[in-house]
Amino acid sequence: MEKDLEKVFNPTSIAMIGASNVPAKWGSFLLINLMAGGFPRDKIYPVNPREKEIHGLAAYPSVSALPVTPDLAFITTPAATVPGILVECADRGIMNLIVISSNFSEVGEEGARLERELVQTGHRLGLTIVGPNTMGIVSTRRKIFAVGAPVQLHPGDISFVSQSGNVGANMLGWTMNQGIGFGKFVGSGNEALLHAEDYIAYFGEDDETRIILAYLEGVDDGRGFIDIVSRISLRKPVIVLKSGRTDEGGKAAKSHTGSLAGSDHIYDAAFRQSGAIRAETSQDMLDLAKAFERLPLPPGDRLGIITLGGGWGVLATDATAMAGLTLARLDDNVMKVCDELLPPFWSHSNPVDLVGNIYMDTYLSILEAMATSPEIDAMVVLGSLGTGTIIGLNVLVSQNLIMEMSEDALKSFFTELKGRNIRLLTRAKELMRMYGKPIVFVEMQFIGEESLRELEAGETVIFTAPEKAAVILSRMLQYRLYLERKGAI
Amino acid sequence: MEKDLEKVFNPTSIAMIGASNVPAKWGSFLLINLMAGGFPRDKIYPVNPREKEIHGLAAYPSVSALPVTPDLAFITTPAATVPGILVECADRGIMNLIVISSNFSEVGEEGARLERELVQTGHRLGLTIVGPNTMGIVSTRRKIFAVGAPVQLHPGDISFVSQSGNVGANMLGWTMNQGIGFGKFVGSGNEALLHAEDYIAYFGEDDETRIILAYLEGVDDGRGFIDIVSRISLRKPVIVLKSGRTDEGGKAAKSHTGSLAGSDHIYDAAFRQSGAIRAETSQDMLDLAKAFERLPLPPGDRLGIITLGGGWGVLATDATAMAGLTLARLDDNVMKVCDELLPPFWSHSNPVDLVGNIYMDTYLSILEAMATSPEIDAMVVLGSLGTGTIIGLNVLVSQNLIMEMSEDALKSFFTELKGRNIRLLTRAKELMRMYGKPIVFVEMQFIGEESLRELEAGETVIFTAPEKAAVILSRMLQYRLYLERKGAI
Repeated sequence: MEKDLEKVFNPTSIAMIGASNVPAKWGSFLLINLMAGGFPRDKIYPVNPREKEIHGLAAYPSVSALPVTPDLAFITTPAATVPGILVECADRGIMNLIVISSNFSEVGEEGARLERELVQTGHRLGLTIVGPNTMGIVSTRRKIFAVGAPVQLHPGDISFVSQSGNVGANMLGWTMNQGIGFGKFVGSGNEALLHAEDYIAYFGEDDETRIILAYLEGVDDGRGFIDIVSRISLRKPVIVLKSGRTDEGGKAAKSHTGSLAGSDHIYDAAFRQSGAIRAETSQDMLDLAKAFERLPLPPGDRLGIITLGGGWGVLATDATAMAGLTLARLDDNVMKVCDELLPPFWSHSNPVDLVGNIYMDTYLSILEAMATSPEIDAMVVLGSLGTGTIIGLNVLVSQNLIMEMSEDALKSFFTELKGRNIRLLTRAKELMRMYGKPIVFVEMQFIGEESLRELEAGETVIFTAPEKAAVILSRMLQYRLYLERKGAI
Repeated sequence: MEKDLEKVFNPTSIAMIGASNVPAKWGSFLLINLMAGGFPRDKIYPVNPREKEIHGLAAYPSVSALPVTPDLAFITTPAATVPGILVECADRGIMNLIVISSNFSEVGEEGARLERELVQTGHRLGLTIVGPNTMGIVSTRRKIFAVGAPVQLHPGDISFVSQSGNVGANMLGWTMNQGIGFGKFVGSGNEALLHAEDYIAYFGEDDETRIILAYLEGVDDGRGFIDIVSRISLRKPVIVLKSGRTDEGGKAAKSHTGSLAGSDHIYDAAFRQSGAIRAETSQDMLDLAKAFERLPLPPGDRLGIITLGGGWGVLATDATAMAGLTLARLDDNVMKVCDELLPPFWSHSNPVDLVGNIYMDTYLSILEAMATSPEIDAMVVLGSLGTGTIIGLNVLVSQNLIMEMSEDALKSFFTELKGRNIRLLTRAKELMRMYGKPIVFVEMQFIGEESLRELEAGETVIFTAPEKAAVILSRMLQYRLYLERKGAI
């Protein structure tokens, strides 16, 4: 059964049941985060029997006293009160609930009893319930930032369900820093009624979501999960970070969310069968998300590499072979272009080693020759972006030693450097569009996290270590091959 | 034969043969970088037959015209002139030379012939020659920053030899950003006379070096390499990043530095036999360097984990098992302390899940109980440092919504947050010293690269993803077990 989560992620009005003025309480900072994110204050309805006003908003003593029927309610009151509140909500017509409250099945028998009661009440009244014990939700385009951590995400097309609130919230924080846009997030909590696969199904239908991420500790209904992911992954990549890969991790997962982890081999097979892309680590999941969002899928396994120096080329070649990709053959046209532009002792094979050549026109000509080559399916460009910085810094240091430089001169100098890089990235984007081959940049010269994000501009992919690029391209290729086998491409 | 490299890394005067005023030339920016790094200008002697002054320094028309005999000379003139200049240097008594000039064996037969001539001249005259085709050297305590990139490294106890100039220079740049101190660096270039293992041997005897790093593409004298590393690694960790792991990478290495890569299995065995620690990637090498520099070696494989939330605990548990470490048993004292301080539903096993408990006293008590436990050899602490930030930001947001905060109040607020983290890290350092067990911090909440480096203060280790900690600790344990087998500990 497809669950209707439309109003969970796109409510126009929200009740906060258990809203509070006491700083350290969920009822306080959840409300604060929601307001800080820009959700219209006049559409937020705090409910608290003992307060007239909460953080500047008029408060209502009970659900029944609300002046309107909000689309969605958050509940942060003690566990024992939740079943009763669910009934009050249903009576008032509030059918979509996010139960933040903890102390349910995760803490012992009494909590488990309360959770069974919550499940029964939910089923009986036909409620849509997220949680309990959830970190909350984010819906960037609706300006809903209702999670425990004060995140303000860039809007984007990636949506994320996490079976761990803290893993989810921390990773949202990383995306802010890494310039990765986000659409929707939900911590699935104890999954009393709604399970990870229900959110995946919803994200699958959601036109605002192009990439789906899931952090999983365990799935109860394996068959249902496979069915849903198999269907969705034909249209959108589903990237999964599954913990409990080892027996020890499985036990830790069981003690954490009570999920029956099951053998990792079974999960691995299920992911392969359903087309899910498995991330190795938490950062790997975000790197994959960024690449799938911004790059075309490689049409084959033949990788072309351009490097500013031999050493990184060797490391990238190792990474290519270890990731199961092959080094592309350089065709006559690529050889001709390189022969014309590079010194006679150039590598004459892939990787194309520019041996420190720093002329942007050389770069662009070789980049284009390789992008148009029928022998090449994907490209990695190593060390090109920092070049300007190295030269620039050298010249600057030199300038400072031999003359005073005006602030204006300094500014225009850096503007020029940036322009140089933007020229390269813009051309790469055009080539990707024209030829449908991914081009991944790798920058080893430290030019600053912020500058890299600015250069990426949410449209290209720049990694800071060469070993990453091949691995990511290989995963994208695997997904493409899956789509081909299924006739979806 | 032990090569004497004392004057290569610790010269008190330096000649720059081929010094130039032309911006894009090595003879220009190498000199500029050397001056910018603070090497005494009156101890630098530019040599150039056509200039009276170079970047403000008096220039000399020839080596024979120099007013003193410098300890060391850099040569940046065209390859064909180098053999002759070596003879001039020897005549003038300059016996230590760094040949930056390229176009030797890396570019074909004529270059190879020149390199053979360089080797013969070097041998005949008893010269110590670095290179040719080297990126240069760094010796931070002597204020020598004579490489192609404008690096200004923090002084430290890690020294690094790289068979690739660009890999070396880029990684030096990374250390600047990652707050890792450095002692000495050398790009070994074409290794006409001095080989990577000669520099490793020198670093082994160098009292200012505690950790040795090497980026290798291939070693010609395998037996000699094993002998040297076996001897050195009993006293200092030798961390090796070896490329050419795959056949394809081997071919790329051959085309790059002409090194015969050989089978990776043979290298792997050689590293194991000689106690070298093998890094997986370029960043991995720096992470290992940082850990070996700052942490005691774990006395055994039993890992204790403290986590702020269950999800990261599960991921860390997976990482522990996958790295070949075991989860430590919690002894009666640890159980008692946790029972007293944590809510009744706490995990009751390792990882100790603080379930969001944020009181620093709780943290410190559990940290201490685990550090003193005879069941625990090493610890990983997940998510503790950002806690203050989350709470802090929540409170701040709240404060901004309900009242104006003065700048002073804001400042003292952040000072308090920082103080909280410093209290935890200071105690961890004391515990490491007292009990000789490593404690690694992992921070998933983004609190800023700069803040993390400031908190590390070059003395503790903070990673930003939990999967890293277990892998690094496992490599440190392997090294300790090697030392135990060899009776060196």
